[in-house]
Amino acid sequence: MTRRSYAVIGTGAVGGFYGARLQRAGFDVHFLLHSDYEHVSRHGLRVDSCEGDFRLPQVHAYARVADMPRCDVVLFTLKATGNQLIPELVPPVLSPGGMVLVLQKGLGAEEEAARAVEAGRVLGAMSFICAEKPGPGHIRHLDYGAVSLAEYDPRGAPGGITRRMRDLAADLEAAGIQVLLAEDLVLARWKKLVWNVPYNGLSVALNATTAELMGHPQTRALVEDLMREVAAGAAALGRKIPAAFIQQMLADTDRMKPYQTSMKRDFDRGRPLEIEAIYGRPLHVARDAGAQLPKTEMLYALLRYLDAMPRGSGAMHETRL
Amino acid sequence: MTRRSYAVIGTGAVGGFYGARLQRAGFDVHFLLHSDYEHVSRHGLRVDSCEGDFRLPQVHAYARVADMPRCDVVLFTLKATGNQLIPELVPPVLSPGGMVLVLQKGLGAEEEAARAVEAGRVLGAMSFICAEKPGPGHIRHLDYGAVSLAEYDPRGAPGGITRRMRDLAADLEAAGIQVLLAEDLVLARWKKLVWNVPYNGLSVALNATTAELMGHPQTRALVEDLMREVAAGAAALGRKIPAAFIQQMLADTDRMKPYQTSMKRDFDRGRPLEIEAIYGRPLHVARDAGAQLPKTEMLYALLRYLDAMPRGSGAMHETRL
Repeated sequence: MTRRSYAVIGTGAVGGFYGARLQRAGFDVHFLLHSDYEHVSRHGLRVDSCEGDFRLPQVHAYARVADMPRCDVVLFTLKATGNQLIPELVPPVLSPGGMVLVLQKGLGAEEEAARAVEAGRVLGAMSFICAEKPGPGHIRHLDYGAVSLAEYDPRGAPGGITRRMRDLAADLEAAGIQVLLAEDLVLARWKKLVWNVPYNGLSVALNATTAELMGHPQTRALVEDLMREVAAGAAALGRKIPAAFIQQMLADTDRMKPYQTSMKRDFDRGRPLEIEAIYGRPLHVARDAGAQLPKTEMLYALLRYLDAMPRGSGAMHETRL
Repeated sequence: MTRRSYAVIGTGAVGGFYGARLQRAGFDVHFLLHSDYEHVSRHGLRVDSCEGDFRLPQVHAYARVADMPRCDVVLFTLKATGNQLIPELVPPVLSPGGMVLVLQKGLGAEEEAARAVEAGRVLGAMSFICAEKPGPGHIRHLDYGAVSLAEYDPRGAPGGITRRMRDLAADLEAAGIQVLLAEDLVLARWKKLVWNVPYNGLSVALNATTAELMGHPQTRALVEDLMREVAAGAAALGRKIPAAFIQQMLADTDRMKPYQTSMKRDFDRGRPLEIEAIYGRPLHVARDAGAQLPKTEMLYALLRYLDAMPRGSGAMHETRL
């Protein structure tokens, strides 16, 4: 049996973690790197994980896609703010008959991938993982780790559970990764937005952890209002997110340790924010379907303003000690 | 002719300015002071004004209402966050047949005054002034200065233009103050909210001047959305605020110099914020009348959260230099 080969486009905490796990499980993995290229070519990858630390002293590291072999699966793990690079980075590494797995938050990545390759090659993926990259080639996996997969359909119809989804799931499970197969990418992405829309944006706007947002009655109610708006957006697209799901998200977040959202970490470090994928695009899609999401729209406006201000040197939210 | 006597309850920038102008015009004015009492009893008041500087070396200064004479007009100029003091501070200084002029932002002050004295004694007032108090007994008047007056009616009906409103206007005009007489207090207060709701709250939430809020397309649109919500709240109470009024407010603000709102100044100085008067009470009134103001509601939640965080020592928004 020939094992599938993987290209990881974007070896950050998430891409690095899943790619390293796949390589450790015996798969042929090729990593595209940017600032960490020199370090990783020499020293490989180091993964400190709540599920067991390991090192890969040697990995296939590349600074340019032109040097990479074509692979059966392209794992696109750049943030949504790097999606304009899809046409440049994905087609050269995709083997004939290969597929692109877009592992990203928010909406819109599959459409962009489908423009660069073809729609039939594209799957969407969402990760439920808490991981960070404290240094070059060094990944720290703190909690969770599951991935959900779904087929992309350009008309937005549910793609069902396909053979290749099961194949991918088998590979990931062989690498010790929990996999959820979703019949409907649109529903799966909007369910993910139920969490991301309130917590990512409010954590930036209010300089707050999830625990702080949940600990004040006004912001807790606002979180729930925003979740209901996301459910209303999904409903306008014919997708039902039950009220119980929202209550479950709130209860799960109550149980989490105080959590710095990814958007807050990006904000504090002066990195681009995934505002369009998490807010702009969902608002656009919902509006086209006839749904108004006023509080989500307001959060989007606040984030666009904060993002436009110079960070590090200009106005920003911080703790005065 | 006996000139009316005035009690100024709360000699801050606003109360100090109008009271000093009245005294300079020959009226008998009695000032209640708190932290500035010692200084003002000795040195009087100093007014640096865009309309001409002046000093009042001697004023009637008091630390306690028990020491004050009863006056024909009580000018209540504490911030809305001091309204719980109305029953203690107003009745002792009000002469039989006298009236209380509540000079305040937001909604609710007249109701509280009417509980302490009687509804027929109460008038509402709004000032359009840019003034600050840089030191004890020292008032800096930067711009504007007009006052609008309206009769309070406990059922919320328009009170019309009354004889005593004209009398008060004559006094204030004698002191060089421009006066606007409003037939309908409810309409006048909601028109004032059209400006205060967007700019006060957003300036705190985003650490921004009015010019910064107007300079970014997203926040500019949000300001306008919030203004429209205020107009919708007024409409639910049977008051029409025309679209042209909103456009006028936007145009006026565009012409203003970059302006630090009063709530932003209070926030930065660790003072109580007028959140209930400007947001909580209007939202309550609008909801009772069947209007939903979702973005105003969200701004209220953000402000309640920010107000609950320790300022000065805890999380706050500031400029990193």
